[in-house]
Amino acid sequence: MTDDPRLSRASAARLSLYLRCLEGWERDGRATASSRDLADALGVTDAQVRRDLACLGGLGRRGVGYGVPALIAAIRQALGINREWPAVLVGAGNLARALLRYRGFAERGFRIVALFDADAKKVGERLAGLEVRPVAEVGRRVRELGAELGIVAVPSEAAQEVGELLAAAGVRGVLNFAPAVLRLPEGIAVVNVDLTIQLEQLAFQVQAGRGG
Amino acid sequence: MTDDPRLSRASAARLSLYLRCLEGWERDGRATASSRDLADALGVTDAQVRRDLACLGGLGRRGVGYGVPALIAAIRQALGINREWPAVLVGAGNLARALLRYRGFAERGFRIVALFDADAKKVGERLAGLEVRPVAEVGRRVRELGAELGIVAVPSEAAQEVGELLAAAGVRGVLNFAPAVLRLPEGIAVVNVDLTIQLEQLAFQVQAGRGG
Repeated sequence: MTDDPRLSRASAARLSLYLRCLEGWERDGRATASSRDLADALGVTDAQVRRDLACLGGLGRRGVGYGVPALIAAIRQALGINREWPAVLVGAGNLARALLRYRGFAERGFRIVALFDADAKKVGERLAGLEVRPVAEVGRRVRELGAELGIVAVPSEAAQEVGELLAAAGVRGVLNFAPAVLRLPEGIAVVNVDLTIQLEQLAFQVQAGRGG
Repeated sequence: MTDDPRLSRASAARLSLYLRCLEGWERDGRATASSRDLADALGVTDAQVRRDLACLGGLGRRGVGYGVPALIAAIRQALGINREWPAVLVGAGNLARALLRYRGFAERGFRIVALFDADAKKVGERLAGLEVRPVAEVGRRVRELGAELGIVAVPSEAAQEVGELLAAAGVRGVLNFAPAVLRLPEGIAVVNVDLTIQLEQLAFQVQAGRGG
C-alpha cells in the first residue's frame, strides 16, 4: 500500500486529533483557524499540519486560514465518520458498561446495536437499553442488523474465537480491547486498544525521559 | 530527540506486541522463537523484527532463534516494566471499575494505589479495595504514595484540570482516557487512549479498504 495516494494511517490519526481541537474551537464560537493554531495545540509542526490538510483539498486561504466548520466537515468525510456505523459489542462486563455510556461513540455515529456475552447468567440482562444475548447469536444478529463493526470486550483467552465469529458474521472491522493479538482474515481491519500496552508505552516514555 | 540512539516509540510499541506473543508462547511451553515466527504472528517483516530486537543486544543465535524467556526478560527491561509503577486513578465511574478489575495492569506491575472522584456522592465508596477520595487530595496523596503515573478517567471537560493537578502533584506520566487533548508541562509524558479516536481510525481503515 506504499503507492496509495490516499491518507496514511499516521495522517488519519492526526486528523482525529485536529478534529478534537476544531470541535472545541467551534463550541467556543471560533470561525477560522490557521495551520499554526493546530500545530501549537497538538505539538506538531506547522508544515505537518499543512501536509495533512492538503489531502482534504484546497480548503485553506492564505492570510485567513481554514473555516472551522468547513474543515470539521472535510475531516469527518475523510475519516468516514460523516455517516452511521452500526456496531455490535461482545462481552458485557464493566468495560462494556463504560463503552455503552460513552457519549462520544453515539456523537460520532458509532451506534452499538447489539450486545452479547458467553455467560448464561448475563444473558437477558439489560444495559443501556440493549438486552444481552448469547454469543451463539452473533452471526445471525450481525447479518440482521447490518452491523459493520464489532467490538471485542472479552477476556484475552476468548478474544481470538470472538474475533473469528465476528469475521465470519461479516463485520468489516474489529475494535479489540482484549490484551491479545487477533489474527483475522485479510480484509478485516483490526484496531487494538490494549490498555496494558498503553500503560507500558507510558512507562517506556517516562523511563526514557521523553515526556513533553 | 531525532539523534536519540535508543528505541523509537514505534519500536517500543512493537516490543509490547512481541511481548504479548512471547508470553503466550511461554505459557504453551515453547522454548525458542525466530524473528520469522514473530513477524508472521504480527504481520510485520522479518527484517523489522530483527531490527527491533537488535536494540536489545545480541540475544538471537543463528539457526536457533531467540530463547523465549530471555527475550521476554530483555523486552520487559527495555520497556521499563521490570519493576512496579504506582499509579493513581482519577474518576471513579464505569471505566475506572473496568480498569480496576483489569488483571493485566497488576500483572505488569502497574499498581493503582489511590482513587479519586470530584463527585461527593462517590467519595467514601470502596472499589477493588480502594476508598474513593476527593480530588482535592490528589496532590497530597500522590506525594505520600510516591505515585509516578496518573490515569485520567473523567469526562472531557474536566480532563485538562485533572491533568494539571496530577502534573503539579509530581506524576511523570499521564494515561488519558478522556476525549480531549491534554496540554501538560514539558517533561510529563502523556499517552492518550481516546476510545472514539480508535473507532474513528477503524472506520477510516474499513472505508479505505485497508483491512488485513
